[in-house]
Amino acid sequence: MNLRPPLTRSQDDAVSSPSFQISLMDESSAATGVQSIRCRAAVCRRPGEPLVIEEIIVAPPRAREVRIRITCTSLCLSDITFWKLKDPPGIVPRILGHEAIGVVESVGKDVNEVKEGDTVIPIFMADCGECADCLSVKSNLCSKLPFKIAPGMPRCGTSRFTDINGDVLHHFLSVSSFTEYTVVDIANVLKIDPAIPPNRACLLSCGVATGVGAAWKTANVENGSTVAIFGLGSIGLAVAEGARLCGASRIIGIDINPDKFEAAKKFGVTEFVNSRSLGDKHVSQVINEMTDGGADYCFECVGMASLVQEAFACCRKGWGKTIVVGVDKPGAILSFSSYDVLFHGKTIMGSLYGGLKPKSDVPTLLKWYTDKKLELDKFVTHEVGFEDINQAFNLLMEGKCLRCVIWMKK
Amino acid sequence: MNLRPPLTRSQDDAVSSPSFQISLMDESSAATGVQSIRCRAAVCRRPGEPLVIEEIIVAPPRAREVRIRITCTSLCLSDITFWKLKDPPGIVPRILGHEAIGVVESVGKDVNEVKEGDTVIPIFMADCGECADCLSVKSNLCSKLPFKIAPGMPRCGTSRFTDINGDVLHHFLSVSSFTEYTVVDIANVLKIDPAIPPNRACLLSCGVATGVGAAWKTANVENGSTVAIFGLGSIGLAVAEGARLCGASRIIGIDINPDKFEAAKKFGVTEFVNSRSLGDKHVSQVINEMTDGGADYCFECVGMASLVQEAFACCRKGWGKTIVVGVDKPGAILSFSSYDVLFHGKTIMGSLYGGLKPKSDVPTLLKWYTDKKLELDKFVTHEVGFEDINQAFNLLMEGKCLRCVIWMKK
Repeated sequence: MNLRPPLTRSQDDAVSSPSFQISLMDESSAATGVQSIRCRAAVCRRPGEPLVIEEIIVAPPRAREVRIRITCTSLCLSDITFWKLKDPPGIVPRILGHEAIGVVESVGKDVNEVKEGDTVIPIFMADCGECADCLSVKSNLCSKLPFKIAPGMPRCGTSRFTDINGDVLHHFLSVSSFTEYTVVDIANVLKIDPAIPPNRACLLSCGVATGVGAAWKTANVENGSTVAIFGLGSIGLAVAEGARLCGASRIIGIDINPDKFEAAKKFGVTEFVNSRSLGDKHVSQVINEMTDGGADYCFECVGMASLVQEAFACCRKGWGKTIVVGVDKPGAILSFSSYDVLFHGKTIMGSLYGGLKPKSDVPTLLKWYTDKKLELDKFVTHEVGFEDINQAFNLLMEGKCLRCVIWMKK
Repeated sequence: MNLRPPLTRSQDDAVSSPSFQISLMDESSAATGVQSIRCRAAVCRRPGEPLVIEEIIVAPPRAREVRIRITCTSLCLSDITFWKLKDPPGIVPRILGHEAIGVVESVGKDVNEVKEGDTVIPIFMADCGECADCLSVKSNLCSKLPFKIAPGMPRCGTSRFTDINGDVLHHFLSVSSFTEYTVVDIANVLKIDPAIPPNRACLLSCGVATGVGAAWKTANVENGSTVAIFGLGSIGLAVAEGARLCGASRIIGIDINPDKFEAAKKFGVTEFVNSRSLGDKHVSQVINEMTDGGADYCFECVGMASLVQEAFACCRKGWGKTIVVGVDKPGAILSFSSYDVLFHGKTIMGSLYGGLKPKSDVPTLLKWYTDKKLELDKFVTHEVGFEDINQAFNLLMEGKCLRCVIWMKK
C-alpha cells in the first residue's frame, strides 16, 4: 500500500492506547485534542480534476467536536457530483468524502458521548438528541444542526483544515473523510462496536443505509408487497436489500442497462424491466400490467424528476407510495396531475438518509448485519489504498463498481 | 311547501308500509321493484341554467340496484361545478345531486343488504365489499366499481331515467338525488338508523364526511398538533371539525374573505390568516413564523394547484403532511421542487371522500354525531323545499351558505 505514516505519530499512537486524561479532568468539559495534526489528505483542488494527495493541517477539535483518525472511507456518487460541480454549492479547495469509519483521536470540550479510542462512523445527518426533531420518532431532520451542503463545520461554519501554506480547505457534508484525520461534530458521530469490519460498517454512513432505510423507515414496506425500483445502482440495490428484509415478495428492477440485472438478483430483485426496450410503451404501462394495477411502493433512485412522475404512475391506486430517493440537479421540478393525486389515493414522499435517525436506527442496521440478515459484503466490489483514490472515482463513474472502499492504511 | 305528490302514489305508499313480498320470494334473488315510477325531478337541461322541475320516469332497479325515495338532499359545490360544465365530463340532460338520504322503495335482484323501508344514504364512492381495495383497510377506492364521473349506472353505464318523451336523462356520480326517486347501486348504499335526522345524515354523503375524513383518516391528525386549512368553505370547515375531533391544539384558517373568520370559530378554527392582506409576504412565511417552522398538517380545500404548492411550503420539515382535498379543473398540475420533497421529509397525499370507506367509516361518523361529538347542525345554514332548489344554487354561489338542505316534501 506504501502509505506514508501520518506526520504526527505521537498523536496517532495516542489513539491505540486510549488516554486516561479524560478521567483526570473535569467531567463534560475535558478537551483532549490540543495540538494540530499534520497528515495526508486527498484534496479536490479543481472541479472534476484528480484529487491531489497532499499534506494538510487538521486543527484540534473545538467544543462538541471530535477528531477522528479515518480507518477507511468509501466512495458515494454524491462525492462525484460535488467533485464535478463548478458552481456553488461546489467549492474548492475541498476535502470530499462522507462514507467512513474511524477511531476517535481526541475530543473537544463538552464531548461525553465518545472518548479517545472509540470506533465511530461519521454521518452527514446530525442527531443532536435535543431538538424537537431528534426527540421525535417522526423526523430524522435535526433542526438544531440542519442538513446543508455548507463548506464549514455545522455549528460555526469555520474550517478545521488548512494546507501547508495556511490556506483554508473546505469541509464537505460535515464529514470530509478523504483525509487521514478529520474533525466532525459530536452530533454527526455514532459510536459502534469495533469488532464490526470497518469496510462494512462504513457503508452505513450514507449510501447503503439510505437505500435500506428508504424501504424500511420511509416507505415501511409491508410483508408480501410489490416494490418497483428505478435505477439499479448501489442506492437502488440497497432499496432492494431493504425491501427483501421487509419481506417484499416481488421486487422489480428498472434500468436502462441490462448488464445490471444479473448482479441485482443477489440483492433480492426478482424481475427486471429494461426501460430502453419497451417500444411504444411507458414503463408505467408495463409495471401496471405485470402487477395487475401497480406496485405498492415505487422508488426513484436515479435522480431524474421525470422518472419520479413515471414512478408515481407505476404506483397502485388506493395505497401506492412513491418515494423520492435520487438527487436531481438543483432547481428540478416534480410535476403531478392534480386529479391523479386527488383521485388515486397515492402518496409522494422524500427520503433523506432513508428516513433513518442516525443514532437510534443505524445501530439496528448494524445489528441486522451482525445477525447476518443485512448483507453488506455484496456491496463492496472494490478496495484500494488511499494513494489510489482517483481509481475509485474512475471505477464508480464507469459503472464498474457498487462501493469501492479506500483504506487509509492496510 | 306546495310539493305535488309523486305521480305514482301506490309505489310511494308501499315505502311507508314495507312490502312482505321479500319474505315470500326466493332469498337473495328477490326483485321488489318491477314497475316504473313517474315522479318529479329537477333536471339540468342546459349547463348553468336553472334546473327544470319536470316529470320523469324512473325504471325499476336491476340486479344489485336499489330504488330510493329521496327524503332530502343537500347541495355540494361539485353539483355546481358540473352544472356549469359545458364540455365533457359535463353532459345534459342530467339529474345532478349526490348528497342525500332516502328510504328504499324497492330492490333489484341479488340485493340482500337492504330491503324496502330501510333508511339509507347513497354515497358516490362504491364499497363493493369484495375487491382487494374494499377488503383492505388501506384503500377507499373500490376497484370493482371505481369512482368515475360517468353519465350512467356504475355496472352497465345505462340510465334508469327517461323524460316523458322517452328520452334518456343522465345520472351523476352514481347518485342523482335531485329527484323524488332515484336508482343507486347497492355498492353505493349505506343503511343507517332511521332515528337520525335526515337533514343531518345527508351531509355525510359527501362534503362534511370528506372534510372530517381528510383530517381523521387521510392525515390521521395527532392530538396536540397544528393544522393549517386553505379555504374556509364547508369542506375546509369540515376539515376543522375533524381536526378538532382529533385533538388538534391549533387550527389556522386561511381565506381571502375575512367575513368567514367569525363563523369559522364555531368549527374549532383558532387563528386566521387573510391571504389578501399580507403585503409582500407569502402565506407560507406567515404560517412558518406563527408556528415556528410550519404546521404539522396543511389541507388545500379550495381546489387551486398553486395553493397546494403554498400549503406544501407551510408544512413543517421532518413530518409535515400536505393533503389535497380541493378539486381543481381537469388538467391542473401540481409542482414541487425536487429538493424540497427530498430534503424536507414532507409527504403529499390526496384525499378522495376523506379516505373514508363508505360502509365501515361512515357509521363511525354517525355514531360520533349521535354521541354529540361530531357537530353536524352548524353546517346546515339553509333549508328549502324542492321547488326552490334553484335558490339553493344561488345561495351557495353567493357564498351565503355552507349547506342548504332541499326537502322533497316537508
